[in-house]
Amino acid sequence: MNELIRDPITARWIIVPMDSSADTVHFATEIHSKNKDNCPFCYGSETMTPPEIVAHRKSGGANTPNWSVRVVPNKFPALRIEGEFERQGIGVFDMMSGVGAHEVIIDTPDHFRDMADLTHAEAEEVVWAYRARSLDLRKDKRFKYILIFKNYGRSAGASLEHPHSQLIALPIVPKRVHEEMEGAAKYYDYKERCVFCDIVREELEENERIIYNDDRFIAFCPYVSRFAYEVWILPKKHSSDFANIDRDCVACFAKALRDSLARIKGFLKDPAYNFIIHTSPINGHEREDYHWHVEIMPKLSKVAGFEWGSGFYVNPVLPYIAAKNLMSVAIPEK
Amino acid sequence: MNELIRDPITARWIIVPMDSSADTVHFATEIHSKNKDNCPFCYGSETMTPPEIVAHRKSGGANTPNWSVRVVPNKFPALRIEGEFERQGIGVFDMMSGVGAHEVIIDTPDHFRDMADLTHAEAEEVVWAYRARSLDLRKDKRFKYILIFKNYGRSAGASLEHPHSQLIALPIVPKRVHEEMEGAAKYYDYKERCVFCDIVREELEENERIIYNDDRFIAFCPYVSRFAYEVWILPKKHSSDFANIDRDCVACFAKALRDSLARIKGFLKDPAYNFIIHTSPINGHEREDYHWHVEIMPKLSKVAGFEWGSGFYVNPVLPYIAAKNLMSVAIPEK
Repeated sequence: MNELIRDPITARWIIVPMDSSADTVHFATEIHSKNKDNCPFCYGSETMTPPEIVAHRKSGGANTPNWSVRVVPNKFPALRIEGEFERQGIGVFDMMSGVGAHEVIIDTPDHFRDMADLTHAEAEEVVWAYRARSLDLRKDKRFKYILIFKNYGRSAGASLEHPHSQLIALPIVPKRVHEEMEGAAKYYDYKERCVFCDIVREELEENERIIYNDDRFIAFCPYVSRFAYEVWILPKKHSSDFANIDRDCVACFAKALRDSLARIKGFLKDPAYNFIIHTSPINGHEREDYHWHVEIMPKLSKVAGFEWGSGFYVNPVLPYIAAKNLMSVAIPEK
Repeated sequence: MNELIRDPITARWIIVPMDSSADTVHFATEIHSKNKDNCPFCYGSETMTPPEIVAHRKSGGANTPNWSVRVVPNKFPALRIEGEFERQGIGVFDMMSGVGAHEVIIDTPDHFRDMADLTHAEAEEVVWAYRARSLDLRKDKRFKYILIFKNYGRSAGASLEHPHSQLIALPIVPKRVHEEMEGAAKYYDYKERCVFCDIVREELEENERIIYNDDRFIAFCPYVSRFAYEVWILPKKHSSDFANIDRDCVACFAKALRDSLARIKGFLKDPAYNFIIHTSPINGHEREDYHWHVEIMPKLSKVAGFEWGSGFYVNPVLPYIAAKNLMSVAIPEK
């Protein structure tokens, strides 16, 4: 069981093991080479994971092969679903129990095809799984926020090579989300418009940094990219909550996501990356001042002392040039 | 020349090149092997750097060998000292010119000895250089903040192997500093005590996580460590501004810093790390609610999607165990 401690200065939460068995340096072993031996996420290894939560499967029983997308609890979770959510103070610190859900979405049975390589239909299945898990987990009243993300490649923090995404349900709204919501709320208070809607309008007008554009979704290299080749994907119609995505929008979003990742993979020669779905906290109503979106961050350079110390980011590639380069590569049609 | 653009949502500043010559992927080439050939920071290469700003040298002229610590402008600065500081708005974005100073402190002429390997007297010389540059740069009224930090090793973002530290003088107070100051101010408003002084008192009382302790300075693995083997160093006497360090405290601070780094190097087998001097903005007066300190962050794991998306950190090693392990290694006496 883990516990959460709050830094009284910055209000950051730190997740630490509660027991002292963690007395040796233990970090997840990383798989360096392309090797599917003993992969717990391949067909035939279904018993190497905790029993599945849900899977898309045409035939066969739970925890057998022949699935197309499979969702399982994380074997080494940052937070656990069992237990009561408790808070207490210890000296200057605040603590709470490590209650939460930590799930793994295995995107595909194919060990060697990341989301960039999937067909649009396969990517859509993954997005349906994101949506279904989001809707299911919000029924648990202990949870305030659902974070969906992907670590791809060693330098993005992936500990397993087989293509997968992750979902963490949290008993509090994380600091980073608060900050973003507050920033967007300030803008809304001042202008009475959603800042993300304004950014989408500017990107469409300037038409210099767009890498995907259909009726429902837009993807672009944002004017204020922190990282080289950063890409954001937003729904054009204002909506604050990813889980409220219209059923007929799922395919468009999956296409925007897969195509963006395919362009990054193609131009940058398969870099490590993280993507994160930024969405509003669970509270049952749509907000006027926030807009859900995805941020994709290729890992091309290291975050060093200057970035840590200042919160400034140095981006060596102008976003319109990044977009032009990403548009120069051919990507799979379907 | 670079330019700074502000993200209207999170108020993060992004540094981007102003011209479009940066149209190819260019990232600092990293030196992988222990190799001092063509090192611009070794004796005899003094003309490979921009002309020195200051150097400790017993004999010989500027930009010649026989120095012990040497400060030069960064050849590839994030910000430049020339030019007026200007701000303007472009659409939803705010911009300002990339005015600032970016200096490199070459810690030692010895290519193979990082600060962990220096004698106390040598480390003291480096700290004197930090102090002197801080005091000198604050005379320039364009600057609001001076950030001193070190990237050691590839995964900490170092692009050159020769031991060096960096200093960046900024025309604005960075967001991360604002956040920390605000958090400390809130605590002070409520308790009328400095939160850092309270943390030092708690660490001394519990006496479980301390790795250095003399009359003037304390170093410990903080209870709310974000990273495994994180170490903080604080002056025991309250002071908000590093540059106001008493002349007779410089030696104690250098000793605390060098000894902490030597313990990290010894126990963790020479890991990459960043350290950052956290200090108050330049404004000429000491603050009751803030306390300067150093944060050392060994790079043992990757910051992945969960951390990026939530601002939570997962620390797999309990700080008291980290401290015990760091204290188990023998470090050089002098």
